[in-house]
Amino acid sequence: MDESNKYQFELAFKVRDYECDLQGVVNNSVYQNYLEHTRHEFLNAVGLNFAGLFNQGIVAVVARADIQYKYPLKSGDEFVCRLNVEKEGIKYLFHQSIYRLPDEKLCIKAIITTVTTKDGKLRVFKELDNAFLNVK
Amino acid sequence: MDESNKYQFELAFKVRDYECDLQGVVNNSVYQNYLEHTRHEFLNAVGLNFAGLFNQGIVAVVARADIQYKYPLKSGDEFVCRLNVEKEGIKYLFHQSIYRLPDEKLCIKAIITTVTTKDGKLRVFKELDNAFLNVK
Amino acid sequence: MDESNKYQFELAFKVRDYECDLQGVVNNSVYQNYLEHTRHEFLNAVGLNFAGLFNQGIVAVVARADIQYKYPLKSGDEFVCRLNVEKEGIKYLFHQSIYRLPDEKLCIKAIITTVTTKDGKLRVFKELDNAFLNVK
Amino acid sequence: MDESNKYQFELAFKVRDYECDLQGVVNNSVYQNYLEHTRHEFLNAVGLNFAGLFNQGIVAVVARADIQYKYPLKSGDEFVCRLNVEKEGIKYLFHQSIYRLPDEKLCIKAIITTVTTKDGKLRVFKELDNAFLNVK
Repeated sequence: MDESNKYQFELAFKVRDYECDLQGVVNNSVYQNYLEHTRHEFLNAVGLNFAGLFNQGIVAVVARADIQYKYPLKSGDEFVCRLNVEKEGIKYLFHQSIYRLPDEKLCIKAIITTVTTKDGKLRVFKELDNAFLNVK
Repeated sequence: MDESNKYQFELAFKVRDYECDLQGVVNNSVYQNYLEHTRHEFLNAVGLNFAGLFNQGIVAVVARADIQYKYPLKSGDEFVCRLNVEKEGIKYLFHQSIYRLPDEKLCIKAIITTVTTKDGKLRVFKELDNAFLNVK
Repeated sequence: MDESNKYQFELAFKVRDYECDLQGVVNNSVYQNYLEHTRHEFLNAVGLNFAGLFNQGIVAVVARADIQYKYPLKSGDEFVCRLNVEKEGIKYLFHQSIYRLPDEKLCIKAIITTVTTKDGKLRVFKELDNAFLNVK
Repeated sequence: MDESNKYQFELAFKVRDYECDLQGVVNNSVYQNYLEHTRHEFLNAVGLNFAGLFNQGIVAVVARADIQYKYPLKSGDEFVCRLNVEKEGIKYLFHQSIYRLPDEKLCIKAIITTVTTKDGKLRVFKELDNAFLNVK
């Protein structure tokens, strides 16, 4: 079964040459930029804002990033980054994947675990729950 | 007179949060990424390709980057990067500017001087002249 | 027991301001740069070379990066990145951790799984085994 | 005459593989990171601090970066970034250059023009003058 049809949010990108390293493919760390940007655009899409939350003292923190590299992206490749979020205790688990376009080749499969803090302490914010978990 | 109406190519972008530094604005070096990506997309638009040229041994090299920082971009800002190219001897001068959207506030004004080499020697390639200078 | 005393290789760093994002801490993706640079310097230390291997067609590929973010690094922080490598089937598992200096505060704990390929096919290279596994 | 013997500050670096792009050399934008980091370490050396100034509302802003690319750095290259600062009206001009080691090959020659602001307005701060201009 192809899971790529079920997701709460997706964002399209195109590889930029400066993101490629001397192996001629996107550098491993750059995928985390793609994943982060997709999460932040997802926040925007559900009415929240990363920089805005930060200015209110609400800090969304990545506690763990578990990224499987399935297939490398190259100069000029177009791709989508897809996202689902679920709650587990006080954590949000973002299930994120990157598919090359137009052939839907799976490139990245990741689970990014985040927590939210205020004044340095772990806290749960109802507005995030509402925003995240009611999206279909 | 607003020069922003005269250009050979433009590309739209949106600031990504990871591009901002601890001052909360886009880091100075990141504008060079924007400018480079715009030049490479311009190459594509005129039927050339940076990675492809490189694989043929044709290396486009930046000899000088003169960048004026007029106004900073912030998290979430949308902007366009505009480009004109002219030839001066064996050099191509890329006149590039970045305007925030939708208010067309000028953020960056740059002249990027490039030369082309093959096997480490400066050379002029007719296909680049044709591609660059016939675009209107 | 403090595991920080047992490792095959370590490299010292200092946070650079451009590595910090608008939260004022090192951006999550940048830690992968630190981890990668440490692995490549480890290669050098055992007589191998990432770019050199690549030029021989031997490509070391990250198959998985599992990174736990324990404590953030800030502008100006000094730190060490420590590394142990073990073999598991055809994979090398790099156990890497980042400790802030001078207080040895644990910031990052990661397992980076790599494989090696030649001409796009998974392969094991005796010279890597010898180089990696005889280091104490 | 070799100017490389006269400078107020220098910082040693080593190229990291992730800083190289698909041409196999350090990406043009990365040199701006090296130049910025050198300026910030120079601030530290003269008793100032970029992040600290920022937290007091004193923002050092780059108004112009004029960078000449003389020779590319490659994977593993070691180099120094040297710096002189002079005052011109309300601006500080940082004359910065990058030399490869150990052969002192000139790679980058740059003039970075900065201004300082408080609450968004251009201002001159005596502590910066004292710190910058009394260094020999």
